[in-house]
Amino acid sequence: MAPKNAFYAQSGGVTAVINASACGVLQTARQRSQEIGKVYAGRNGIIGALTEDLIDTSLDSEAAIAALRHTPGAAFGSCRYKLASIQQHRAQYERLIEVFEAHDIGFFFYNGGGDSQDTAHKVSQMGAAIGYPIVCVGIPKTIDNDLPITDCCPGFGSVAKYVATSIRETAFDLASMSRTSTKVFALEVMGRHAGWTTAACALAAEQEGDAPQVLLLPEIAFQEDRFLAKVEEALERHGHCVIAVSEGVKGPDGEFLSASASKDAFGHAQLGGVAPFVTNLIAAKLGCKCHWAVANYLQRSARHIASETDVEQAYAVGRAAVEFAIAGRTAVMPAIRRLSDSPYRWDIIEAPLSAVANQEKRLPPDFISSDSFGITEAARRYLAPLIVGEAYPPFRNGLPDYVKLRNLTTPKKLAQEFTV
Amino acid sequence: MAPKNAFYAQSGGVTAVINASACGVLQTARQRSQEIGKVYAGRNGIIGALTEDLIDTSLDSEAAIAALRHTPGAAFGSCRYKLASIQQHRAQYERLIEVFEAHDIGFFFYNGGGDSQDTAHKVSQMGAAIGYPIVCVGIPKTIDNDLPITDCCPGFGSVAKYVATSIRETAFDLASMSRTSTKVFALEVMGRHAGWTTAACALAAEQEGDAPQVLLLPEIAFQEDRFLAKVEEALERHGHCVIAVSEGVKGPDGEFLSASASKDAFGHAQLGGVAPFVTNLIAAKLGCKCHWAVANYLQRSARHIASETDVEQAYAVGRAAVEFAIAGRTAVMPAIRRLSDSPYRWDIIEAPLSAVANQEKRLPPDFISSDSFGITEAARRYLAPLIVGEAYPPFRNGLPDYVKLRNLTTPKKLAQEFTV
Repeated sequence: MAPKNAFYAQSGGVTAVINASACGVLQTARQRSQEIGKVYAGRNGIIGALTEDLIDTSLDSEAAIAALRHTPGAAFGSCRYKLASIQQHRAQYERLIEVFEAHDIGFFFYNGGGDSQDTAHKVSQMGAAIGYPIVCVGIPKTIDNDLPITDCCPGFGSVAKYVATSIRETAFDLASMSRTSTKVFALEVMGRHAGWTTAACALAAEQEGDAPQVLLLPEIAFQEDRFLAKVEEALERHGHCVIAVSEGVKGPDGEFLSASASKDAFGHAQLGGVAPFVTNLIAAKLGCKCHWAVANYLQRSARHIASETDVEQAYAVGRAAVEFAIAGRTAVMPAIRRLSDSPYRWDIIEAPLSAVANQEKRLPPDFISSDSFGITEAARRYLAPLIVGEAYPPFRNGLPDYVKLRNLTTPKKLAQEFTV
Repeated sequence: MAPKNAFYAQSGGVTAVINASACGVLQTARQRSQEIGKVYAGRNGIIGALTEDLIDTSLDSEAAIAALRHTPGAAFGSCRYKLASIQQHRAQYERLIEVFEAHDIGFFFYNGGGDSQDTAHKVSQMGAAIGYPIVCVGIPKTIDNDLPITDCCPGFGSVAKYVATSIRETAFDLASMSRTSTKVFALEVMGRHAGWTTAACALAAEQEGDAPQVLLLPEIAFQEDRFLAKVEEALERHGHCVIAVSEGVKGPDGEFLSASASKDAFGHAQLGGVAPFVTNLIAAKLGCKCHWAVANYLQRSARHIASETDVEQAYAVGRAAVEFAIAGRTAVMPAIRRLSDSPYRWDIIEAPLSAVANQEKRLPPDFISSDSFGITEAARRYLAPLIVGEAYPPFRNGLPDYVKLRNLTTPKKLAQEFTV
């Protein structure tokens, strides 16, 4: 009997290494062709399954698949699309079954963050509820590092390396300029609800007093007076001040600082921009010249400065997902378990999707320094190994040489369209 | 007779490779110790000379000096400080002579952009006017690439590589998200008066239609209708649109777009932020989700992704400056001459400071595409070689391992203080 085919899709905000997980899935599945047939990738996540827009990955060369390991973004397209519960929207699940049945799909791999693990979990429940046997394995991915059970999330280590490198580099720039010009620099980083990425900026510092001198974590309500006092202290001690600020910092009123900042010329609220907000505040109250940057997509797509540790873990969870599936494990997600900090050792364990879905892991209180503007040694021990190692992509003509797959759709077998 | 000592200083906005020029100066001077004595570095540019704050670079090890080649920022501190003319402020020049005489300085090296070359030029004129013999050589540096005579400016190639890499990477991200979420991404880059850096973003594209689909150059007045039509066209053809926008784009009224954008909660004008301005406009008029980033200091300090070509040229102009000085050439600047585009070949020639000071080289009209939203093949031929080659710094614990020099001040010899 021919082995069942597999469905793989990428979901949610992308990362520099989600394609390394795809590479792990596809290379492992090709090696296990006795047990897994074709891997169909959903174009734009679960939408590809619902609309029967299935990419036949067998039409891509070994070399192209291998190049996914060093290519950022989601090679098959991602989506922000959350399945309703089976009770609420049974037709959606019936459609998924129709499509999977039509293409003889017996394995379902979904690569994403908390919402995506929820989708994987629901699809696994569908198997029992509607009576279609399908093995469902989630694959962790999120720069936000907020999934439970897994020690860290693939995607985070590379963002951490990018922001810590950027802070270190800009601190050299700022120190050069501060005598006669700019004295404050603020970098705005992602992580709307959890301060992992902001905390990682602190890895740039090797000694007391090194940049960043101030972190603004989303876990801590912004207090203008305490913040300005901290900046002033840094200016007095070092002559300059580097600030790492989360896009998700809120004021004492619980509102995002970025939302309260300003209206544009058309009267629309500015999208984001907490770095300009805090630097404008400093310029007004402390009277010094400030610069600011907003990294936004740059930080999560910067494959050129990816963490080798992160790339290895991203690949490993993709590989493990296929191995779990072949072993008949369903409704699970490969999770990274830390065995030791230094030397850093880790392995992969199995986490039940029911325990992963819709959970959010915040920065633990003991990772935040007593004045709330920095991190503790415990945080440093946790974060430090995640950024170790460089995994440069190949370059051609001075630029990273990333792969674009052929992404050919397999012929549709169902007569009916489905609108999402 | 002991050889004369030298003064070296760094000036203006810093770059990822200005220290590679310092490395070229210091290593070459050490090799030519029969002809040049100690090299004193001015702490914070010309201010170090005026205040007799002279760093004795002979106290730094060979290894530390070598590490300057891969360290961003200005190792001795920079300044934004323009000397007045000799007629206007003769006391300043008399002070410089006093300091130079006290420390037996016969060579003056000033590493910077247009304003700094003006300073070097004025110091060279002082030699004749006040009767103190000093050999003055300027060393080019500016990410803005706007110095005349030299084919390109050290610092620019690395910024160009950074922004083109970032555009390519974020385009992969955006293409992944555009089906259900973000459809437009705008990256704001430096270059207030000249569009070289914005133009370099276009190197990310290999084929017609590749990102960036739209450039907003500071040479071209912003026209809302034409811009929105161009973005709409890109959205229709590709489903997404990447925009590279100069911080210096002006509206038809001649005002910076960034200045007209908005006031913050305190009523102060926002500092910069033309990327949020244009994306807010798109969101309001075309109704699609947008993301934006402002690279700011990140782009000019990103030594981790420096262009090897740029690093080599930065080092070469430092070395050539010392060789020119030893040959008795004064009031000159080493300039890069392009011998061929492909294969890229260049050498170094001598440019008179009188022809370099206070000039600004804009993007030539034939580098701008007919619709003004892109670059021509001529621009691509010019830009392409400047980003070639990677020159990774060493990494330690996952982060670039940059050097901080000891920067020990040589004892003062003058009784009088000088206030700047």
